[in-house]
Amino acid sequence: MSTIEGQFDAKDALGIRAVATRARRAGRAVAALEADARAGLLTAIADALADPSRREELLTANARDMVDARAAEALGKLDSARVRRLALSPAKLDALCDGLRQLAAAPELLGTATLQRELDDGLLLERAPCPLGTLGVVFEARPDAVPQIAGLALKTGNALLLKGGSEALQSNRALTALLHDVLRARGLDPGVIALLEQREEIAAMLELDDCIDLVIARGSGSFVQYVQRNTKIPVLGHAEGLCHLYLHDDAEAEMAARIAVDAKCSYPAACNAIETLLWTPGARAALVASARALLDQGVTLRVCPQTRAALASERAPLELTPASAEDWHTEYGSLTLSIRQVSGLDEALQHIETYGSRHTEAIITGDEAIARRFLAEVDAAGVFHNASTRFADGYRYGLGAEVGISTGKLHARGPVGVEGLVTYRWLLRGRGQVASDYGPGKRPFLHRTL
Amino acid sequence: MSTIEGQFDAKDALGIRAVATRARRAGRAVAALEADARAGLLTAIADALADPSRREELLTANARDMVDARAAEALGKLDSARVRRLALSPAKLDALCDGLRQLAAAPELLGTATLQRELDDGLLLERAPCPLGTLGVVFEARPDAVPQIAGLALKTGNALLLKGGSEALQSNRALTALLHDVLRARGLDPGVIALLEQREEIAAMLELDDCIDLVIARGSGSFVQYVQRNTKIPVLGHAEGLCHLYLHDDAEAEMAARIAVDAKCSYPAACNAIETLLWTPGARAALVASARALLDQGVTLRVCPQTRAALASERAPLELTPASAEDWHTEYGSLTLSIRQVSGLDEALQHIETYGSRHTEAIITGDEAIARRFLAEVDAAGVFHNASTRFADGYRYGLGAEVGISTGKLHARGPVGVEGLVTYRWLLRGRGQVASDYGPGKRPFLHRTL
Repeated sequence: MSTIEGQFDAKDALGIRAVATRARRAGRAVAALEADARAGLLTAIADALADPSRREELLTANARDMVDARAAEALGKLDSARVRRLALSPAKLDALCDGLRQLAAAPELLGTATLQRELDDGLLLERAPCPLGTLGVVFEARPDAVPQIAGLALKTGNALLLKGGSEALQSNRALTALLHDVLRARGLDPGVIALLEQREEIAAMLELDDCIDLVIARGSGSFVQYVQRNTKIPVLGHAEGLCHLYLHDDAEAEMAARIAVDAKCSYPAACNAIETLLWTPGARAALVASARALLDQGVTLRVCPQTRAALASERAPLELTPASAEDWHTEYGSLTLSIRQVSGLDEALQHIETYGSRHTEAIITGDEAIARRFLAEVDAAGVFHNASTRFADGYRYGLGAEVGISTGKLHARGPVGVEGLVTYRWLLRGRGQVASDYGPGKRPFLHRTL
Repeated sequence: MSTIEGQFDAKDALGIRAVATRARRAGRAVAALEADARAGLLTAIADALADPSRREELLTANARDMVDARAAEALGKLDSARVRRLALSPAKLDALCDGLRQLAAAPELLGTATLQRELDDGLLLERAPCPLGTLGVVFEARPDAVPQIAGLALKTGNALLLKGGSEALQSNRALTALLHDVLRARGLDPGVIALLEQREEIAAMLELDDCIDLVIARGSGSFVQYVQRNTKIPVLGHAEGLCHLYLHDDAEAEMAARIAVDAKCSYPAACNAIETLLWTPGARAALVASARALLDQGVTLRVCPQTRAALASERAPLELTPASAEDWHTEYGSLTLSIRQVSGLDEALQHIETYGSRHTEAIITGDEAIARRFLAEVDAAGVFHNASTRFADGYRYGLGAEVGISTGKLHARGPVGVEGLVTYRWLLRGRGQVASDYGPGKRPFLHRTL
């Protein structure tokens, strides 16, 4: 059985508007559920993902996508990393089940109050978390994003319009059908999660600034930029992940090499991988150790003249490419790293300010005062001392799951989990009080925070 | 003495860019101050505002603005409410001093942590509040906004580009000179607060999406809309304040009349004043009492046919104007109110959803279950039960001061005080840990929240 609801035929804004309107209404019903019932919904999705016959369906659908993807890979039309991310497996489905069960058990934000204040006797103000409303999420190949994002949206009472990569179409359809069946079985409108299938529908969705409260864009930098430039809806995401590792004077050579390799090589395409290494003349030993370790991992090093000079005097000459001004602006996303010498902390801060993308920046130093200044002065979502930039991740931060990483400053910054999917309302309960009775020379406010 | 720094001659984006760049740098120095020093800065501004000779200067400058404003008022070019808001007085200056001293004493957000979590032994994650960076604030006549907004910006370590109404130019200059003198006396760059004086400079400022982190727009709805449509910088503000008061079946007549009069008449131009009254057939007594009280206050009532019929049968006939469809969309901002009968809660919710501006909505009812549904289902920054919409205000909420009221859903909603002017960074302190050592089958995360 494979029912896709919350969909449409028309590829125009009118069609998407109807989908979004239905989703919003359906989302209200999810938000109105008791916390237990919402948790039960997530558990039921986990149960369905663990069910052998549903698994069979999902893996069969995914196998169809994989056949097409491997053919495209053979023709050089799809890169192998993307093909790998497309694959579902029993292990991946197990991980998804675990994630959903953890999310079900996580504390509820809806129904709580982040502030309670008596303005006066019998006049109670409350700041109450509530869903944003309707989310539009556009993401690339990984089909496991469908239940992950759906779980986060349902946990926070939000409706969801999802558009995945076309390579994952069969997988995404099967996963959405599973979600719809669970929703329907619990008496909820499956339209709360709508899968968009056509590329044109993204443009139509971006026009609905009166229907969609937040767009989450996950994909290439140019795609995220396209989304940001083509909508009045707030967009959460990152167009760029240009992260730096700065080796200060006394940086320990072994630590520098280990962190540099992890930050560059463990997943070079990740947004939290580093693109540039900065070092001071006093950190020469750390530079040399890092450069050797990176070259051992097959990293191409693009270096400034001072770096070249420092490494040229090594006994075994290292293979180096000269860096151009362009390099400091470049997010390679591959096993290439630029290296530049700076005179000290101020020049490092200046370089990061000029070229960084406000994602994640790290320093290696044993000098606490220098570390404190770096942590205080770098303007980025993540600022790390003696740790790899690769820790910048919702799972690693212990946020549960994440819908994306934001390099914007407002609302949510860095890895965004459930907290980024809620806003709040100010609720005021009185007994007929009017504002003109209060103020200077009249009745004073109590303002007692509870 | 009247020194204006942080200004420029060029009316082009390049000039404003230089101003914004200097302001940002200067803002960092304010953010880097110890909490005590930042509090001392606010106290020093309050002291300067209390100083008799500075007061003399301020009131003289304001008197010059008032002469021009009264002339413009006589010619019908400036409305009298605006002229009233322009006037400074010793009492207003006293209130400003009080506000600044309260803000100085209020808890600091900078330097605190909103989350501390051990990811592992010796790997400590912290979510640390930090300034947004540089704020662009555009506001209308009221010159008291200058020290108020400056106080909020300095408290949160933000730089500020301010553009006030041209009617208040002399007053704003004098107030800015006072702020600059205090900053300079404490060894800070006065460029952290820059006063823009030309209308063209607003457009130039709106182009600087790489220099300015948040625009706060206060003024007419059409002006706020102009700002929203002409910048890629996030805008905080409200283009509209179309608030409703809903009288449910059993609404108490005396309470309804009292709240209706307060919500409409105490300050009709305020964004939290009501524009439409909704009532059910069961709330007829409350409607009649409210209509009589409103007419007594000189309010023009624009009513639907059912309302007209309900009020026509009253012994003394009431003066009523028929409402057109246009009325439900109209923010009068004056002593005019539209009234519409609805069949019950669902139709009221539907009306508010369709015509409301997500600002503040109120219900009057003795039925707790109905109140609970209204509070749960209305999507607005403020949702009130048995209280006037006029309570929607930063001072009344006990937030100290406010930079504005936001009808957007992201980041900050409703009255925005200091919390809306900060964002956060994720700080991670380690001992050389790398991410690839952690994960399934490897070292587990501790994730111990402190």
